[in-house]
Amino acid sequence: MEVYYVPLKEIKKIRQQVKNPIELCKLLACIFRLNTLAMITEAGSGHLGTSFSSIDIITWLWTQEMKFPNQEQEKNSDIYFSSKGHDVPALYSLLIGLERLDYDLIHKLRQLNGLPGHPDVNTPNIATNTGPLGMGVAKARGMAKAYRLDKRQGNFYVLSGDGELQEGQIWESLTQTANNNFSEITLIVDHNKIQSDTWVKEVSDLGNIEEKFKSFGWEVKRCDGHDFNALRKAFEHFRTITDKPKVLIADTVKGKGVSFMEEVSSEDNLYKFHSGAPSKEIYQAAFNELIERANKQLAKLNLAELKLDKVNIPEKVTLKDPEKLVDAYSDELLKIAKDNKDIVALSADLVLDCGLIPFKDKYPNRFIECGIAEQDMVSMAGGLALKGKLPLAHSFACFLSTRPNEQIYNNATERKKIIYLGFLAGLLPGGPGHSHQSVRDISALGSIPGLTMIQPSNEQEVRLALHWAVEKNNLSSYLRIVSIPCELNYELPSDYELIEGRGVKIKEGKDAAIFAYGPVMLTEAIKASEELAKIGVELAVYNLPWLNIIDHEWFKKETKTYSIIFTLDDHYVKLGQGNLISSALAEGNVGKKVFSFGLREIPACGRNDEVLKYHQLDYKSIVNKVKENLRKP
Amino acid sequence: MEVYYVPLKEIKKIRQQVKNPIELCKLLACIFRLNTLAMITEAGSGHLGTSFSSIDIITWLWTQEMKFPNQEQEKNSDIYFSSKGHDVPALYSLLIGLERLDYDLIHKLRQLNGLPGHPDVNTPNIATNTGPLGMGVAKARGMAKAYRLDKRQGNFYVLSGDGELQEGQIWESLTQTANNNFSEITLIVDHNKIQSDTWVKEVSDLGNIEEKFKSFGWEVKRCDGHDFNALRKAFEHFRTITDKPKVLIADTVKGKGVSFMEEVSSEDNLYKFHSGAPSKEIYQAAFNELIERANKQLAKLNLAELKLDKVNIPEKVTLKDPEKLVDAYSDELLKIAKDNKDIVALSADLVLDCGLIPFKDKYPNRFIECGIAEQDMVSMAGGLALKGKLPLAHSFACFLSTRPNEQIYNNATERKKIIYLGFLAGLLPGGPGHSHQSVRDISALGSIPGLTMIQPSNEQEVRLALHWAVEKNNLSSYLRIVSIPCELNYELPSDYELIEGRGVKIKEGKDAAIFAYGPVMLTEAIKASEELAKIGVELAVYNLPWLNIIDHEWFKKETKTYSIIFTLDDHYVKLGQGNLISSALAEGNVGKKVFSFGLREIPACGRNDEVLKYHQLDYKSIVNKVKENLRKP
Repeated sequence: MEVYYVPLKEIKKIRQQVKNPIELCKLLACIFRLNTLAMITEAGSGHLGTSFSSIDIITWLWTQEMKFPNQEQEKNSDIYFSSKGHDVPALYSLLIGLERLDYDLIHKLRQLNGLPGHPDVNTPNIATNTGPLGMGVAKARGMAKAYRLDKRQGNFYVLSGDGELQEGQIWESLTQTANNNFSEITLIVDHNKIQSDTWVKEVSDLGNIEEKFKSFGWEVKRCDGHDFNALRKAFEHFRTITDKPKVLIADTVKGKGVSFMEEVSSEDNLYKFHSGAPSKEIYQAAFNELIERANKQLAKLNLAELKLDKVNIPEKVTLKDPEKLVDAYSDELLKIAKDNKDIVALSADLVLDCGLIPFKDKYPNRFIECGIAEQDMVSMAGGLALKGKLPLAHSFACFLSTRPNEQIYNNATERKKIIYLGFLAGLLPGGPGHSHQSVRDISALGSIPGLTMIQPSNEQEVRLALHWAVEKNNLSSYLRIVSIPCELNYELPSDYELIEGRGVKIKEGKDAAIFAYGPVMLTEAIKASEELAKIGVELAVYNLPWLNIIDHEWFKKETKTYSIIFTLDDHYVKLGQGNLISSALAEGNVGKKVFSFGLREIPACGRNDEVLKYHQLDYKSIVNKVKENLRKP
Repeated sequence: MEVYYVPLKEIKKIRQQVKNPIELCKLLACIFRLNTLAMITEAGSGHLGTSFSSIDIITWLWTQEMKFPNQEQEKNSDIYFSSKGHDVPALYSLLIGLERLDYDLIHKLRQLNGLPGHPDVNTPNIATNTGPLGMGVAKARGMAKAYRLDKRQGNFYVLSGDGELQEGQIWESLTQTANNNFSEITLIVDHNKIQSDTWVKEVSDLGNIEEKFKSFGWEVKRCDGHDFNALRKAFEHFRTITDKPKVLIADTVKGKGVSFMEEVSSEDNLYKFHSGAPSKEIYQAAFNELIERANKQLAKLNLAELKLDKVNIPEKVTLKDPEKLVDAYSDELLKIAKDNKDIVALSADLVLDCGLIPFKDKYPNRFIECGIAEQDMVSMAGGLALKGKLPLAHSFACFLSTRPNEQIYNNATERKKIIYLGFLAGLLPGGPGHSHQSVRDISALGSIPGLTMIQPSNEQEVRLALHWAVEKNNLSSYLRIVSIPCELNYELPSDYELIEGRGVKIKEGKDAAIFAYGPVMLTEAIKASEELAKIGVELAVYNLPWLNIIDHEWFKKETKTYSIIFTLDDHYVKLGQGNLISSALAEGNVGKKVFSFGLREIPACGRNDEVLKYHQLDYKSIVNKVKENLRKP
């Protein structure tokens, strides 16, 4: 398919020709939307809705409000960053248009060595890493305090989402920011009233946010976040306030600029443009709206139509009959919940991604939406468990294993039964970047007594794992679930059962064995084994879904004939499953070598194949590493 | 020394004789204070100030407000718990006086199989485990939701501290509790205006908390929390509110009931009765005030004076010249900060416990108090580091490694330099219980790339570790520091240097080697080695202060002559240092056995010696385990 970019030459021309700041911002914002749309379409994923809702605000800020002194005074530059972070495609598009980022990067969104899916300080003009929510005000206060200590001048503009206000850290930060009169900090709430799945008011109504901010000691203004005049006035007002931090509630529209992206679907009450990439048809329709508006405005100003760059992008590869673990979970949960009336499902604003919609529709009374408030969700699960319910707490693994880390431990000390469901687990997808690549949950939670961690490797094992957690485990479980659809090159035996601490051989081999878990790494392991077979090396492949328990006797027996064992973690090597396997062997002194593969540095952002290769976790790298270690004395 | 308890017989008599609820509560509260004072004195530690500020509130609640239906209707009982948790001695004293706990337990505060330092559900009438702050409202909502699902009736009374309101999770919970009209939940803020070190308004002023709660949709009342009439009226009012949750701001006095415990010291601006146990003189003075008041009131009611039980408690053992790691840290920080102007110290309301008072006094501008808001503190540290400062973030290890777990990771992804200081690390002291016994920080943080974890074993190593982190490490460090004073039975070489991943042999031995870290475990290891020497087993003892990195080459060389290696973690065995040692050996296939000792279950609460023994981590247990494993084929 074809996508169209507004080239830098055209943007520069407009920046020179249009003198009226409001007319200029209107045009630039439209152009930045065009390029954001093309970038996300080319990348194959990204956050359109929030990019579009924030784009007018940042256009005004970066072109009219922020001060960037000359080189001598550079230390006094203003700082902008987005706390929600997933609106970064809009910022990239703007930075490229303002020549603060190389134009060539426009084609490298979510690619290796390109523009990460969430902000990262390795990119010029990105002030801080965001993506996990709620950290922005605290980070700005740290920066502002450093400025104060060094007698630097500068304003700090932080954009937050409205759903983001559900995060407790925000409210922690507000108090001390007001108490210390950080008037150099301006928070702008991109109040588009829709969070990842649907309306904020349906997920976790914020109530009167103006009153909330006022009660926390902040100067509050509210305006239309798409009205440049109103934005100008709001910031003018803020300049007169020098004794407290300021917050602008900017009323915006998610997906603003493309008519059909501005609404929650009336059909299923879901917002369709939070993440992902538009189809060919949707791209074309959105492009048509935007280009028409831009050219109309240009005509009004007696300027020429935009000359666009056309780029051909390859069609998305569709997988043949992939396994979808999230769908299997969704389906099995519904079945189990029919008979087990104690089951209560909790969500932290991710009903779609956690496969919870069927459950929510079928058992609305047993479904609890906590909003983006993982700590609240997990402690609420604790309360439910204390009173006899079986709570299932859902989120992305990266958030669930870390944000409510102490809350999960606290629940475990009560020795009640709770099931935690961590989706988007592991290194892939590589596009969202390290804030979303959950590669340390074994470490973060694995030592908790009474919490058993399992990672299923296919749909069948998802169902088995859920049954095991609900029916067999007396204490708590954490199911670590890969979210990307996977074409699998292995099967589990049809009579396969989950037995605590034991795995299953899914490919025979007499020379060495590799232990892995989850669909991504097992697929690479099988491929590696097939490659190695071609050169006469027989590598057995084991699926060991138990992430933090190992049946030592089974393991000893199973590995008796191997003198070399490999482990393959979809996780940091350090404090992952491989370490536990080594320890299991060390006690027995069975005289085997163990080589552990896994992540050794913070995961790169990029296409899935790029990321696997970069970290030497693709099958080719595995083949090389196996060969190399087999040769060692 | 002697302490005096009001025996159950006396309490029962008063409960029968005094009919006026307000007179009764006055008397009971005074008696509960007397017994709380004796319990904490006998235990040797506990939280007096907050127990005394809350005791009038809970006396009124448990005797006048809460409904405990008969057995048939038991499912509809009201529930009370304290979210702050450290006021639990007051609750124990009350529960004992109301015959809801065995009277004998009065002498078992903070002892094994006794009454834990923070609430635990294994104790009758304790509704949930608290101690980590901010979880109460969410837990109550979980319980209330379970009641709703089961059509049970009941009110939920949650007590919180005022400092506790600085925790973000509180604010997460308020929104959804209001949105779902949980009018069965009443939050009572024990607003004593003093947090662990000093005045709340100096740590992190709460501003207008009534307005804050109102803006979050809660029904708000405020009253004197020591005036039973006012408490009665407040709860009467709340019974008329059926469409939203309620919060009572109870104005209280920390240490209420004992004149000299009611004030922050004017000398050093510190509150002296937050935790710890009173001396003989202070006990006596406090007792005198309380008993005089109780007897006066009894006289007014024409009732006999209280007949007390006298208990002799052993004098506190004073250690001979113990090492105090916190003091060494405090001192060395001050020295380093003199030359290194980039150093900024952040605190989460623990200046005293983290040795920060000298720094704060000397460099007020480079000291930042964030209040009980660890997430805010850590992200603020991130902001400071991004702008060239060297932030040192301080808290108890149990909180620092878990509450801001995602924030520490987020900072690490920016690859700036931050130093985290986790105090109260490890299994001891055993008195506060599992919420404060930090035995999973290696696991919780150890896999983060660019975060090096070190645990110093004596004052000398504390100083070296701080220098290493400030001067040698380019990235971030986590110093895990034991807070109890320790009598050490080993020394480090005077020319000892910290070299990344390497340890030091502190006792020779040819038969086997044990690797440990920190003063508690190394002391036990040395004692074990000395015991074993008596039966001809020579056990070498190594101090390996690097918790998440091991120099494989050094390790291989150092352990060449040993076929059996023991590891001793002041941490869960699972995902502790022992696992990393096993992995280091597994790659080399050196044919050694490794046996790892450490925690295998949630730590018990009790006296230090009891707790070590219970978990088989005292030297005698280590001797037995070493002998047993040396005998294995």
